[in-house]
Amino acid sequence: MIEKLIEKIAEKNCPVVVGLDPMLSYIPDFIRNAAYEKHGKTLEGAAEAVLEYNKKILDATADLIPAIKPQIAMYEQFGIPGLKAYIETVKMAHEKGLIVIGDIKRGDIGSTSAAYATAHIGKMKIEDVETPVFDEDIVTVNPYLGIDGVKPFVDVCKANDRGIFVLVKTSNPSSVDFQDKVIVSEKGNRRLFEEVALKVEEWGAEVRHGNYSDVGAVTGATWPKAGEELRALMPHTFFLVPGYGAQGGKGEDLAGFFDKDGAGAIVNSSRGIICAYKSEAYAKYGAENFADASRQAVLDMKEDLVSHIGK
Amino acid sequence: MIEKLIEKIAEKNCPVVVGLDPMLSYIPDFIRNAAYEKHGKTLEGAAEAVLEYNKKILDATADLIPAIKPQIAMYEQFGIPGLKAYIETVKMAHEKGLIVIGDIKRGDIGSTSAAYATAHIGKMKIEDVETPVFDEDIVTVNPYLGIDGVKPFVDVCKANDRGIFVLVKTSNPSSVDFQDKVIVSEKGNRRLFEEVALKVEEWGAEVRHGNYSDVGAVTGATWPKAGEELRALMPHTFFLVPGYGAQGGKGEDLAGFFDKDGAGAIVNSSRGIICAYKSEAYAKYGAENFADASRQAVLDMKEDLVSHIGK
Repeated sequence: MIEKLIEKIAEKNCPVVVGLDPMLSYIPDFIRNAAYEKHGKTLEGAAEAVLEYNKKILDATADLIPAIKPQIAMYEQFGIPGLKAYIETVKMAHEKGLIVIGDIKRGDIGSTSAAYATAHIGKMKIEDVETPVFDEDIVTVNPYLGIDGVKPFVDVCKANDRGIFVLVKTSNPSSVDFQDKVIVSEKGNRRLFEEVALKVEEWGAEVRHGNYSDVGAVTGATWPKAGEELRALMPHTFFLVPGYGAQGGKGEDLAGFFDKDGAGAIVNSSRGIICAYKSEAYAKYGAENFADASRQAVLDMKEDLVSHIGK
Repeated sequence: MIEKLIEKIAEKNCPVVVGLDPMLSYIPDFIRNAAYEKHGKTLEGAAEAVLEYNKKILDATADLIPAIKPQIAMYEQFGIPGLKAYIETVKMAHEKGLIVIGDIKRGDIGSTSAAYATAHIGKMKIEDVETPVFDEDIVTVNPYLGIDGVKPFVDVCKANDRGIFVLVKTSNPSSVDFQDKVIVSEKGNRRLFEEVALKVEEWGAEVRHGNYSDVGAVTGATWPKAGEELRALMPHTFFLVPGYGAQGGKGEDLAGFFDKDGAGAIVNSSRGIICAYKSEAYAKYGAENFADASRQAVLDMKEDLVSHIGK
């Protein structure tokens, strides 16, 4: 699956993934009010507003981008109606030929991780009948529980040609709390995130197709030096790079996350794209044309990245 | 909320939480077939079987126990119908006066963790209207992203009198992969899980009521020595102890997880209770009376724990 993602990035010359993480406050009044008129200020109303907002952004950007990354928390917060909107968003993106990276950050032990993996990137078997459930192409996974928690995802990747991105070095400031702790090792001390990185590279060996495996890594754009170090440490691991834009990452800092051919990573922006119309740079579009503002923000981000990578 | 849990444990003299983590293979044929007759071998059919199974186990055990711990993955695997069954299970348990520990192991950065916290232990605000969503009392949280990922949960705990259990030392064999790595520290080297433990104790300071805070810790029954060490390291942190029974934990090994008054921890058993009728010890009940087998398994586990703690 990561191979397909790489092909799609090359085809569109656009290593950008749009983070479809809608907060209610991002959604223009006219969409929210229309949804509330139908359903009241309920979970159903909020979920309908989210879905309508997503639909417009997908319509305006799908031809430019290889993939979307919906953050499931932003749907889960609206309960059952929200999760229905999540599933609908996955379907809409698939209909437009996009790859869907479900940002679910799940991770548990043995059979429990297997249940998550089956639900999200596999098929649920009910007696002799197999049913896809959430049906993303790739999901993010938390490594704190070790290989027991990750292996079931790798097995499902292998059986269904899907992928995962394991959290290695996250973009948030307090990722230093534990991820940057220095660990005592016979082969020389290294930070926890490097220890995780080496495991991720190892876990991916059995699902390698071409240069990269189906076990990728999350490495935050806000830590460019770590990104460069991890690129060297993990030659067969593709990177999902969050933290561009609103969180502070810039194209000029991101060259080191990519390989010498300008491949090896995809960069996520959420607020900077889906909420572009609220920023000064795109204010001229106005709330009515929020999706056009998102389209222009994708084009600008693509230009910013493409001009700096593979050099 | 942890204070309420402690009261309920004392009232029933039973530090047992029943893990309502139904796998389809646990559910007796007569329940599964009845559900499939109504809905076919679909997600709806599976979810109905799960709910019926839970209902019978709750009816048979609720008077004995202080709390249940549904593992959300086992519901999420059945998509929307499964998550509806999860919400119904939470409601049924509340109607019986039980505390619900949602085993969700969520954890993300800032606003995303806030969305999870709001959905599970807070109230979702849609404009000026507040709505509870999943409505558990306590949830489990993954610490890999550091305080950014945990603080939003603590804030929601504070505002709504709820609790969390942060993963410290999990029960699975590969918890050693990262959690047991030795970290270089000015105050002497210590393992990652001890580093996490000290942070958890610190994060709980602002939500302490009585001896224990509303920020608890998950410490696996399969690591009795670590449990004893953590009890000393975290005097104000209540423990959720998974891994009893099927995973190998026994009452005689668990005394060290409790404080000198026999409080300080609650022990989870899932398969050992909900699937008791399939084990040799309770086979005499038969599949038809699976819930009676679960009741007896709770009584036996209670006896095994109570006879070993607070000595």
